[in-house]
Amino acid sequence: MTAAPIRTDYLTCEDRPPGVRIALNRPDERNALSRNMMLALTEELERQSRRDDVRVIVLAGNGPVFSSGHNLRELVGHGLEDQREVFAICTRLMETIQRIPQPVIAAVHGPAVAAGCQLVATCDLAIAGERAVFGTPGVKIGLFCSTPMVAISRNIGRKRAMELLMTGEFIPAGTAADWGLVNRAVPGDRLEDEVWELAGKVASASPLTVRIGKEAFYRQIDAGQDEAYERMGETMAANAVTGDAQEGMSAFLERRTPVWRGE
Amino acid sequence: MTAAPIRTDYLTCEDRPPGVRIALNRPDERNALSRNMMLALTEELERQSRRDDVRVIVLAGNGPVFSSGHNLRELVGHGLEDQREVFAICTRLMETIQRIPQPVIAAVHGPAVAAGCQLVATCDLAIAGERAVFGTPGVKIGLFCSTPMVAISRNIGRKRAMELLMTGEFIPAGTAADWGLVNRAVPGDRLEDEVWELAGKVASASPLTVRIGKEAFYRQIDAGQDEAYERMGETMAANAVTGDAQEGMSAFLERRTPVWRGE
Amino acid sequence: MTAAPIRTDYLTCEDRPPGVRIALNRPDERNALSRNMMLALTEELERQSRRDDVRVIVLAGNGPVFSSGHNLRELVGHGLEDQREVFAICTRLMETIQRIPQPVIAAVHGPAVAAGCQLVATCDLAIAGERAVFGTPGVKIGLFCSTPMVAISRNIGRKRAMELLMTGEFIPAGTAADWGLVNRAVPGDRLEDEVWELAGKVASASPLTVRIGKEAFYRQIDAGQDEAYERMGETMAANAVTGDAQEGMSAFLERRTPVWRGE
Repeated sequence: MTAAPIRTDYLTCEDRPPGVRIALNRPDERNALSRNMMLALTEELERQSRRDDVRVIVLAGNGPVFSSGHNLRELVGHGLEDQREVFAICTRLMETIQRIPQPVIAAVHGPAVAAGCQLVATCDLAIAGERAVFGTPGVKIGLFCSTPMVAISRNIGRKRAMELLMTGEFIPAGTAADWGLVNRAVPGDRLEDEVWELAGKVASASPLTVRIGKEAFYRQIDAGQDEAYERMGETMAANAVTGDAQEGMSAFLERRTPVWRGE
Repeated sequence: MTAAPIRTDYLTCEDRPPGVRIALNRPDERNALSRNMMLALTEELERQSRRDDVRVIVLAGNGPVFSSGHNLRELVGHGLEDQREVFAICTRLMETIQRIPQPVIAAVHGPAVAAGCQLVATCDLAIAGERAVFGTPGVKIGLFCSTPMVAISRNIGRKRAMELLMTGEFIPAGTAADWGLVNRAVPGDRLEDEVWELAGKVASASPLTVRIGKEAFYRQIDAGQDEAYERMGETMAANAVTGDAQEGMSAFLERRTPVWRGE
Repeated sequence: MTAAPIRTDYLTCEDRPPGVRIALNRPDERNALSRNMMLALTEELERQSRRDDVRVIVLAGNGPVFSSGHNLRELVGHGLEDQREVFAICTRLMETIQRIPQPVIAAVHGPAVAAGCQLVATCDLAIAGERAVFGTPGVKIGLFCSTPMVAISRNIGRKRAMELLMTGEFIPAGTAADWGLVNRAVPGDRLEDEVWELAGKVASASPLTVRIGKEAFYRQIDAGQDEAYERMGETMAANAVTGDAQEGMSAFLERRTPVWRGE
C-alpha cells in the first residue's frame, strides 16, 4: 500500500505525517455528495485507515464550499429504489467515519450544507473557519434533512436542531461553536494551523490507545449508563494491560517520555 | 371545520394565516394547567392540526403569566387515582404537541413554571421575551417536578436540569436561551414579531415536508444511532419521491420558486 | 450511628448541618482514587446517606488538587483481573453517588483529572473555583479514559467530550461551566460559600421530596420519552399523595411556611 498522496477525480489526498488530508475536490459542483463522491470518500477513508503511519485524518474541501450536500440531480426523476440506494451509501459513509480507528477532524472553511453539515456533525472533531456556515435547508426544497438530522441532533440541543431543520436557515461558525456542532471557530487564515495543531495532539498519543478510545466512545454513547459502565469497565481493564498502557503509566511515574509500540 | 377563530373559556384562538395563535386564557389563575385547561388545549391542538390551512401553531398565554403549572387545588386532598389521572391528562397534552403535524412554537412572555416550563420544553420551538422566567419549584412545595423533568432534561444538560429541579430557583430568559431551553430571548415588545417571523419561515415550506420532518424528528431522537439511520434512510427515500420534493428540487435546479401541492 | 464528624486516613468528614462535607484527604497523593480511597468514599457515602439529619452531601478535596484520578501504581504491573477489580470498585463508587437519596454537590477547588473529572461529572451538582481545571489525559499515558467518558459524555456535548478525551488537554473552570460540566465557576475564595448556599437551598426542601426526585431523575434520564413519562407519571402521582406534598401544596395555597414530616 502506497504512502504517497493519491489523487482521484473526486478527492485530493495529501500526506502530512503523522496524518493525511483528504479534501473533497469538486469545487465546480460545490463538493456535492454525489454517489461517486460518497463512494470515493468511503473507499479512501477505508484505505487510509489501514495505513499504520496515518494517525489522524483531516477532512476538508477544495474550492469555496466545504460541501453542499447531496447532488440533487441524482434525486430528481428517480424512483424509490434509487433514493434508498443514495441514502444507504450516505449512511455507510457516515458510519465509516466513526468506525475507522483514526480520529477524523473536519476542517470546515466554507458552507457545510445538509449532508455536508451531517458530515461535520459525524466527524469526531471539527474546527470551523469564519467563512463557514452550517444549515439544513432541505425543508425549503421539499426534502427534509432527515438523515442529516440523525447526526446533528446527536451533537446539539433539540430546540437548536429543530430550528436548523424547520427553518433551513444557516448559522455562522461562532454559533456552531457555541452550540457544540464544532469544537471551535477560528479566523479563516488560522484554520489549517489550528486543525493540524489539534491533529498533532491526537497523533502524539499511542495509536493503539486512540483506536481503543474512539471505538469505545461510540460503543457507549447510545447505551444506558449501567450498560455503558459494564462495557467500559471491561474496555478499560483490557486497555490497562496492553504494552502501551503499561509503558505510558510507567513513563509517567518515572517522569520520562513514553515509547509507543502500538501493542 | 371552521377556519374562523374560536373562543372558549379556557383558550383564545386567533387565525393568523398561515398559522393560528392559541393562548391560555385564565389570567386570574395564572393560566394554571387545570384538568379542563389541559383537556381544552389538547382538544384544540387536535382540532387545529386537522385544518389544512394551518401550517404552524403558536402557543401563548394571556395575562402576565405564561403558565404557572398544575392547579394545586386539583391535587390537594385527592387520592392516588385522581393524581394519576391529572398526570395522564398532562402527558397526553405533551404528546399531542409533538404528535400533531404542524410545528408548535411557544411564545413565552412571562413566567413558565413547573408544568408550564414543561410545556415550553415540549414545544418544537420557543422564543422568550425578557420578562419570561423558567423554573420547576415543585421541590419547594413537596411535589418534585418529575413529569416536567422528562421534557426539561431532554432539552438541557444534566447538571443544569438538576439545579432547576433541586433548588426550584428560576432562570431568566437569557439563561434559558444559553442553555437551549428556548431558541432565543428577545425584548418583550419584539416577542410577537419574532415568533411570527419564525412561524413565517416554517410556514413557507411544503406542509407535507414539514409534517414528514417533525414526525421523523421524534421517531429518531430516542433511538440508537444505527436504528435512527435505518428509520431515517427509509423516511428520506420516501420523502424524496413525493411530488413536493420532486417539485422543490426541480425548482431549485431551475432557479424558480417551487409550487407546493402538499403531496 | 454517630452524627459526629469522623476522620479516617483517606477522608475527612465534617458535619455542617443540615449537610455533611466529605473531603478526599490524601493531599500528598493528589487525592488519587486508589482502591482504598474509593472503598472508603463509597462506604462513607453509604454511611452518611443513612443519617436522617444529613440532607445534602458536599464532596471536596484537601490540599491543592481535587483529585488526580486512579492511582497508577495500582495499575502498573497488574494483570487483567486486578484491573477489572479496580474499575468495578470505581463504577460502584460512581453508582453510589447517584443512588444515595441525598444530592451530592462537588466543590471543586483544584484540578479534577481523569477519574477525578468523572467524579465531578457524576455528582448531582458541582461548583468550580477558578483554580479548578478539568481533563481526561489518560490518552497521553496509553490508558484512554473510557470509564470517565461514560459520565463526561452524558454531561457535555459529543464534540467537546471527544476533544477532552482525544487530546488529554485541560479546560478551565469557566469553560467547564459553559459546557455544563459544572453548574458554575466562582472565585476561589467564594467556592465554599457558594457551595453551601446551594446546599442550603436543596436542604430547605422536604427530604422525602428530594429523595423521590433524585431517584426519579436517574430512572428516567436513559429511558425513551414514552417510557420516561410512564414511569414519572406514576412517580409524580405517588409523590402527590405523600404527607409532605399535601402539606407543601396546602401551605403554598394558604401562604404559610410548610412543616416537613418526611413522610
